[in-house]
Amino acid sequence: MFHVVDTSVFDRPLLDDLCELTTLVRTVAKSPEGARCLQQLAPTKRAMLYFTQPSTRTFLSMNNACHVLGIRTSEIRNSSVSSEVKGETFEDSIRTFSSYVDLIVMRTPDPGYAARAAALMDSIPRPVPIINAGSGKDQHPTQALLDIYTLERSFEESGGIDGKIIGMMGDLKRGRTVRSLSRLMRHYEGVRVVFIAPDTFEMEPDIRAFMAENDIPFEETGRLHEILPELDAIYVTRIQSEHDVNDESSGVNLAPFTIGTHELGLLKKTAVIMHPLPRGPEIAVEVDQDPRAMYWRQERNGMWMRVALIAKIFDLDQEIRELASRIR
Amino acid sequence: MFHVVDTSVFDRPLLDDLCELTTLVRTVAKSPEGARCLQQLAPTKRAMLYFTQPSTRTFLSMNNACHVLGIRTSEIRNSSVSSEVKGETFEDSIRTFSSYVDLIVMRTPDPGYAARAAALMDSIPRPVPIINAGSGKDQHPTQALLDIYTLERSFEESGGIDGKIIGMMGDLKRGRTVRSLSRLMRHYEGVRVVFIAPDTFEMEPDIRAFMAENDIPFEETGRLHEILPELDAIYVTRIQSEHDVNDESSGVNLAPFTIGTHELGLLKKTAVIMHPLPRGPEIAVEVDQDPRAMYWRQERNGMWMRVALIAKIFDLDQEIRELASRIR
Amino acid sequence: MFHVVDTSVFDRPLLDDLCELTTLVRTVAKSPEGARCLQQLAPTKRAMLYFTQPSTRTFLSMNNACHVLGIRTSEIRNSSVSSEVKGETFEDSIRTFSSYVDLIVMRTPDPGYAARAAALMDSIPRPVPIINAGSGKDQHPTQALLDIYTLERSFEESGGIDGKIIGMMGDLKRGRTVRSLSRLMRHYEGVRVVFIAPDTFEMEPDIRAFMAENDIPFEETGRLHEILPELDAIYVTRIQSEHDVNDESSGVNLAPFTIGTHELGLLKKTAVIMHPLPRGPEIAVEVDQDPRAMYWRQERNGMWMRVALIAKIFDLDQEIRELASRIR
Repeated sequence: MFHVVDTSVFDRPLLDDLCELTTLVRTVAKSPEGARCLQQLAPTKRAMLYFTQPSTRTFLSMNNACHVLGIRTSEIRNSSVSSEVKGETFEDSIRTFSSYVDLIVMRTPDPGYAARAAALMDSIPRPVPIINAGSGKDQHPTQALLDIYTLERSFEESGGIDGKIIGMMGDLKRGRTVRSLSRLMRHYEGVRVVFIAPDTFEMEPDIRAFMAENDIPFEETGRLHEILPELDAIYVTRIQSEHDVNDESSGVNLAPFTIGTHELGLLKKTAVIMHPLPRGPEIAVEVDQDPRAMYWRQERNGMWMRVALIAKIFDLDQEIRELASRIR
Repeated sequence: MFHVVDTSVFDRPLLDDLCELTTLVRTVAKSPEGARCLQQLAPTKRAMLYFTQPSTRTFLSMNNACHVLGIRTSEIRNSSVSSEVKGETFEDSIRTFSSYVDLIVMRTPDPGYAARAAALMDSIPRPVPIINAGSGKDQHPTQALLDIYTLERSFEESGGIDGKIIGMMGDLKRGRTVRSLSRLMRHYEGVRVVFIAPDTFEMEPDIRAFMAENDIPFEETGRLHEILPELDAIYVTRIQSEHDVNDESSGVNLAPFTIGTHELGLLKKTAVIMHPLPRGPEIAVEVDQDPRAMYWRQERNGMWMRVALIAKIFDLDQEIRELASRIR
Repeated sequence: MFHVVDTSVFDRPLLDDLCELTTLVRTVAKSPEGARCLQQLAPTKRAMLYFTQPSTRTFLSMNNACHVLGIRTSEIRNSSVSSEVKGETFEDSIRTFSSYVDLIVMRTPDPGYAARAAALMDSIPRPVPIINAGSGKDQHPTQALLDIYTLERSFEESGGIDGKIIGMMGDLKRGRTVRSLSRLMRHYEGVRVVFIAPDTFEMEPDIRAFMAENDIPFEETGRLHEILPELDAIYVTRIQSEHDVNDESSGVNLAPFTIGTHELGLLKKTAVIMHPLPRGPEIAVEVDQDPRAMYWRQERNGMWMRVALIAKIFDLDQEIRELASRIR
């Protein structure tokens, strides 16, 4: 593994490996000595965070994941401070970043940029790995990874993701997290997916075709209350009204697609509620207190999963395994 | 001590303790070996600086105070790069920050936000400490701390703050530093406070009532030259015209409330001139050369006091005492 | 050497010394052990990057140069987040930065600011060094240094810069890099300079006078193809149309001042092509593949040269020499 541009780089062994590594990192980091050892793994590496689209969670979790490993970071979060204002091409800007650092983490509003950056790297004498931290509406592979990890951990004592029924609810049309997660479901056995959305925001045909081609059973419904008791996990997403072109969101009745105290009563005791955050009104704040609310833990898992991913890219996984066996 | 939201957390023993710790940190930092040991106190801690209001001094001194202790920092200084643009609530944003770091330092334009952040932390399973770096017009507790430290150091050989006459001049109505400092005066014995301001900007009734209730003798005057020879310290503040609602500043004659070479002649040899900075015309640049001008040292003290405060929050004070006894 | 405000601080021994130091730093950094030792040279130093003008390359190479030496950095890249919005003077802002850090790197849109900052530092009790990272249209001394280093390295086996014929092409009127580089040519023996520009953008009289006074032979031409076969180096620059006042750029035919595959055929086998970047259309992307295209290496050299410069300022050069003799 060198670049992480989209979820196609992940197969089941790699997913399992990254999940295991994430748990090891978390364990090691708990002891002060372990945390110090982690910081000694990559202190001379330098990373660049190039975010031209607003981001809190992904930016902060990437930045702090670097810090956990001792990596120093530089950031450009506003293209008005960079040479793009002088008309530099995207490729020249990326090559420039690569001159100074060992890793580029990037988020762009348009799809395809991460792939272009990776292709450029593969053509120059001193390439550095590219991690896609969200490009356009389509790919957000590190989010998909942390979702997988959180599901696996939630079902740790019931056989993991294999065989589970997973609901995905909300703005399925424009939510890149549910799109990426749906694709990764092909690596798990016996999973059934239920898409729960208002008509306006139902899952796009490309993903439904992908599911069919890969023999992932799925169904679509607009009736949350009917399906909720069957689910092992419900992955809720926000209506992305900032992507409205013709004010699509305003006419939609979202009330039937929310989780509140009533819905908690319908949900299995062993089920989990996930959300990529930030949330809107689709999950009531009172739900946070419920032990099945997993989204805050999911968020924090995001940092640890990114530590594991970066460690893997820099071939530090063996050292982490040794640390874990020594410190635990 | 966990959160530092307002000055009410400080009593006299804690103030004395923090002042002593600040002096120890400064002493240790002077030797290269000491500086390296300080950086080894918290290298695996991570802090978040969340500043949605412009700041140079407080931001830089907090960031560098973290660096002195080896703490890695992340920053959001412009809410347009964060998920608030996607409609996330303040509480959800703060909880998100807390997922990735061990300390949140925040400055907001509106009062009450630091208290809300601290209350949120007290309600979740993995709280991190909140330091208020200025919220609205009222509280700026770390500024009050560095002011106390600078006064104590200035009067080191004359018994400290106890028994001194302290003038506060300028925009007393809207200056949060003089408001916080006035409140802390109740912890010192025999202090007399003189408020020196044009009518438009005189001290607000709440602080005058506080002084009366706590038996802190104070008087108010508009005549600087008459009172100046009596003062042990004159704490000068800027007219905060950026807070004008109806152009209050423009009609006021500020000339009688400035310190220049003539005023230096009226001031005691042992007195000190302080200012929270940035300054406007209220202190002439020529005054900088005078040995009684303490404001640049006061500014630098701010970093060291913040090192001491963060060390105290992370229970590192005993280690600093041991370092100091070993290295001195 | 303390401040680096303009190229006048560099004489030939210092230029040779910095070039040698740069090569040593690069060599040491290649081994993991060496990279760790470099980071242990200045871990307790703190630097401030104050960039009020857009910059990618200089900002990132300075920030990462600091990180190579273990220096922690703070940044202000947008004056709207700082106290200048409260009316603070430039001098007070710079003195404030100096209160918290050990080094200030600054870029400003107006000339003269770096000199003012250095003069201020020389007048206060606790001065820190100032590095000018570009001020106005005139000075950019660290760029000139990395250009010198790249030329010296390119001619390593043919006697260095002495005796070479160096072409400078493009917007010579407004390009500060060619202006600084021209000035430094006086320190080299037997160099001949050829200015190649359209009439609108020819080199300004002050530099031509400087060349004449310092006995640096130079000529001016608008015919690239005629002179190209004679050159040992061609330093290409971008037309800085963002500095157009009366749309000067639009009427100029730039086609005769570009390097493409045809021009590669006219250039000596041993010659090199340089460019300070970012580039516009004046160098075709296909040229990147040619072994004589030196601009990407030049860019990366910029970081290493800045490591050497900062090390020199902090008197770490002897330690780097010892590291190099031990690790090589």
